[in-house]
Amino acid sequence: MSETGLGAVAQSSQEILSEDPTASLRRIVPDHEPVAPEDAESESNWGFEDTRFEVDARGHVRLTGDRYALSGAELVDLLPWARELLDLTLDPSHVNPSQYPTPIPPPNPHAAFEEELRRALSGDQLSTDPRVRLRHGHGQTQEEMYAIKYDQIERVPDLVIFPESEADIEAIVAAATRFDVCLIPFGGGTNVSEALLCPRDEERSIVSVDMGRMNRVLWIDPEDHTACIEAGARGRDIQKTLERHGFTIGHEPDSVEFSTLGGWIATHASGMKKNRYGNIEDIVLDLRAITPLGVIGHHAALARESIGTDIRRALFGSEGNFGIVTRATVRIRPIPEVQKFGSVLFHSFEDGFAFVRDVERELSEERLQPSSIRLVDNVQFQFSQALKPKPTGWKAYRSALERWWVTGPLGYDPQEMVACTLVFEGTADEVRLQEKRLYAIAKRHRGMKGGAANGERGYQLTFAIAYIRDFMMKHFILAESFETTVPWSQALDLCRNTKQRLWQEHAKHGLPGKPFVTCRITQIYNTGVCVYFYFGHSYQGIEDPTGTYAEIERAARDEILRNGGSLSHHHGIGKLRRDFLPLVKSEANLEATRRFKHALDPANVFGASNQ
Amino acid sequence: MSETGLGAVAQSSQEILSEDPTASLRRIVPDHEPVAPEDAESESNWGFEDTRFEVDARGHVRLTGDRYALSGAELVDLLPWARELLDLTLDPSHVNPSQYPTPIPPPNPHAAFEEELRRALSGDQLSTDPRVRLRHGHGQTQEEMYAIKYDQIERVPDLVIFPESEADIEAIVAAATRFDVCLIPFGGGTNVSEALLCPRDEERSIVSVDMGRMNRVLWIDPEDHTACIEAGARGRDIQKTLERHGFTIGHEPDSVEFSTLGGWIATHASGMKKNRYGNIEDIVLDLRAITPLGVIGHHAALARESIGTDIRRALFGSEGNFGIVTRATVRIRPIPEVQKFGSVLFHSFEDGFAFVRDVERELSEERLQPSSIRLVDNVQFQFSQALKPKPTGWKAYRSALERWWVTGPLGYDPQEMVACTLVFEGTADEVRLQEKRLYAIAKRHRGMKGGAANGERGYQLTFAIAYIRDFMMKHFILAESFETTVPWSQALDLCRNTKQRLWQEHAKHGLPGKPFVTCRITQIYNTGVCVYFYFGHSYQGIEDPTGTYAEIERAARDEILRNGGSLSHHHGIGKLRRDFLPLVKSEANLEATRRFKHALDPANVFGASNQ
Repeated sequence: MSETGLGAVAQSSQEILSEDPTASLRRIVPDHEPVAPEDAESESNWGFEDTRFEVDARGHVRLTGDRYALSGAELVDLLPWARELLDLTLDPSHVNPSQYPTPIPPPNPHAAFEEELRRALSGDQLSTDPRVRLRHGHGQTQEEMYAIKYDQIERVPDLVIFPESEADIEAIVAAATRFDVCLIPFGGGTNVSEALLCPRDEERSIVSVDMGRMNRVLWIDPEDHTACIEAGARGRDIQKTLERHGFTIGHEPDSVEFSTLGGWIATHASGMKKNRYGNIEDIVLDLRAITPLGVIGHHAALARESIGTDIRRALFGSEGNFGIVTRATVRIRPIPEVQKFGSVLFHSFEDGFAFVRDVERELSEERLQPSSIRLVDNVQFQFSQALKPKPTGWKAYRSALERWWVTGPLGYDPQEMVACTLVFEGTADEVRLQEKRLYAIAKRHRGMKGGAANGERGYQLTFAIAYIRDFMMKHFILAESFETTVPWSQALDLCRNTKQRLWQEHAKHGLPGKPFVTCRITQIYNTGVCVYFYFGHSYQGIEDPTGTYAEIERAARDEILRNGGSLSHHHGIGKLRRDFLPLVKSEANLEATRRFKHALDPANVFGASNQ
Repeated sequence: MSETGLGAVAQSSQEILSEDPTASLRRIVPDHEPVAPEDAESESNWGFEDTRFEVDARGHVRLTGDRYALSGAELVDLLPWARELLDLTLDPSHVNPSQYPTPIPPPNPHAAFEEELRRALSGDQLSTDPRVRLRHGHGQTQEEMYAIKYDQIERVPDLVIFPESEADIEAIVAAATRFDVCLIPFGGGTNVSEALLCPRDEERSIVSVDMGRMNRVLWIDPEDHTACIEAGARGRDIQKTLERHGFTIGHEPDSVEFSTLGGWIATHASGMKKNRYGNIEDIVLDLRAITPLGVIGHHAALARESIGTDIRRALFGSEGNFGIVTRATVRIRPIPEVQKFGSVLFHSFEDGFAFVRDVERELSEERLQPSSIRLVDNVQFQFSQALKPKPTGWKAYRSALERWWVTGPLGYDPQEMVACTLVFEGTADEVRLQEKRLYAIAKRHRGMKGGAANGERGYQLTFAIAYIRDFMMKHFILAESFETTVPWSQALDLCRNTKQRLWQEHAKHGLPGKPFVTCRITQIYNTGVCVYFYFGHSYQGIEDPTGTYAEIERAARDEILRNGGSLSHHHGIGKLRRDFLPLVKSEANLEATRRFKHALDPANVFGASNQ
């Protein structure tokens, strides 16, 4: 027996790591489209600049622009419904005007670092503009958005750099290491775990590294069904580019319009259609990351390997803690022949849950699950009804008749009924079969088809509804979401107990009116589900609105953990949930994570202090 | 904005981490069956003691026992076929008699460590028996098996300990740390990457920790479809226990009879039916591991989480390098309603490959892939034909007729034709649909159905054929397998070039006769495939048989990497392939892995030196 050695073969990695010479013949290098001016994003609110909820001259709520199905229509039912639900007057003229930008803390520049980078990069790659600094100092939690409009962020980056290549990033990391500067990577800015907040006790100069210019789909391999994409590419651009060539990445988190590939990896993201396409860890085959230790990389993007402890996996959920993902090779799929929406009404959340559960049991066994299946509770169902534009003419007659029929002869209780929205994808045959099996299960649970239009509306509403948080905030209501994973057996209890706890906390804190408490099942797995909660309340007359909100959210998280739920299904830990980590990970686990971080980043260059 | 703190909620992890109180009501604690005496495993050969290939009185090859479909039958075609293929005389009486056990190196005991453990554990949990030590000092590569029969292993563990609980393992790790003893975990002993070999330069006392007594299925949750299983449980026992309760883990590596759950995690294993059940990383929801840093654990086994860098993922592929996995909670699935085998014959490997590729493209799009699909090349097809028992009577007539029909009017060339074996699972409807779609694709590629019996034979042959390596070794032939992952676009080139390289190397080394060179596609993925190679040659008259073999295998690995393949798809790195790591991982990647190992195991207690 002799221990092995390479002997005469494979002398250098250069020899092996050289690109497949035939690759360039088949790979497509797609055209790159810069962001259109009309797609400018808001600095002070969620989403696109042209889209916001507002009260029109007739006192009705309207979504501006023409981007979404909901855009333009008068939502006459919304305010009356909200008044009743929240037990508040909600006078449309009584608003809390945005103070954006609230005072921006002065910078703590590092002249030598900046000078070095100004030499290495071009002038427009660095910005000290206060509003640019502010935008890079927060994500999209309600607390952060409240702060930039009504309070203030105590610490924001002192400098923002926009790298355009891996070489730029290597230069930035090297300079940060040399000059003891703190780096925080920035993707789409949609983070909801306070991961982008600067640590308050950070005394070093803080530099935000905005990946927005590294946003190309570098190549598409139509034969291997792979694509290599820069980490700063936004979901909507990836979708558009791949679609032009007949492919999809299939990853649709709620933030897909704005969030980036790098952000998806760093937060361990999940998409609404994961039943068909998988979550981000299933989609990414290979990635490259620049850390203070060097470039984490691999010779090829392979479907599956056994190559020892795979450090690349540590980048999933890394939350900017030890490096910057620069690009990834992902699995892509052909655009399905058919995409169909659907919806089902149920008499109760329990009926709907039993249905969803059977769908998982029976259809995952047959691999016939829809790409997306989501079950909203009654409050969310009512909410979606309240968001319907008022029908006119014949449609009004039909709508009234339908409502009468459903709640009358069919016996659906408007205060109890719930809805499930569905996305079916596949070949025409497969979709037909998916539908047939699914609706048969629905029937067993007293479900009634609600139609494709309602299904599509429900699915797409996700994108438009995201804008309502800022509208509500202006009208003295704070609302936010949080999510968890829970085994099937504990899911109903978790939903019930968490809601109950939120009601109790609302009362305990003596908040005005009634709370907005609702949940939906957004993802199904063989062994459990993802539950997504919303909690909202009036902050009229409350001294520390976001502090109060945070306290209540922590109580809800406590309840979730007590009911067998996870700390997060896809939002991540960041700074928002890191105090809970000792409740879910063993001490050795936490210590190993700290040591691992230290191993990759001994000087804590990536000092975001997440997790 | 205030940074978050736990405030008044969730004071202690004990509060949260306590078990779901309703779990015990629904969870099944299965009876535990000890290993039956007739299931004793061989010390010097692969597999069960009662099963081995031998030449019977009539000069024909026979598999002893009655365990496998092949068992008992006279394989009259095997030797003649092998003689022709290898261009060797292969006189059955000319054998290299096993010297097992070859000299076992004397132990290097650590008295204080042993004394401490003898106090903490019961007497039968420690063994210094030379043959027990020897068995724990190697895995199942051909080089290791050759060494125990014809050469020798230079270093084997000095002591073997059989823990029966996590407390035992904690005591072992604590004592090893205190007394500076080296630990090497041992599962089923089927490792094929030399991971179980003791490092030759290890001066400390080496202790093998055999997990075989921690082999229970602790509970089955029929509602959540999960099971908690001790890491030492063997695949066949997990299968049997779950089957009694209507479930399956679905994980079927070729070694499933003998390999263990802990070994699957440590080597990042893949199963033959991964299309339906996933690979080990998809199956394991949660695991617990004992490292020198402490217990790596988590509060719950959840379907999917985003909880920062997840250290548990580093245990996949850890190869005994920094701890011992003690148990895991896995996803289980109901036993499918229908399991059907199938096979298809093709005119050439290229035709078969095009078929397999279309199956992936079209059926994975429709989620109708069979649970298992494997394509063997012509040599392997011939081999499986040579392993057929000689039919008699009417069967002989039918068989001859079939052979004439296939190779005559149907035009299949016996020197070119290949076969694909299939396992379909699901509901009766689903399986019907899978078959219909698949056979339609086969037709497009001039494929002809080969029947369910041949499919089942092909699939099950995997288990029986594993015994032939030791038979061949006795007859002066060394043969071994190695595998890789490769993108679809490079797969055919990789197969062709690697085979060619093996032929060249065989000639270059002046080995007798002709080589046994063959491959099969064993796994399909969206973006590529797993290719499994066999290489064999006569070692008659060769001075350093396993050294020569190893050199040729390294050349083949070099060729594989040059053709875009991975270092391993599921066998792992161990000591066998670690010299290749710098060719596939970046320097920072390797350094991060070393630092991570050091972080978890600063004293290198787990000193197997794999990767």
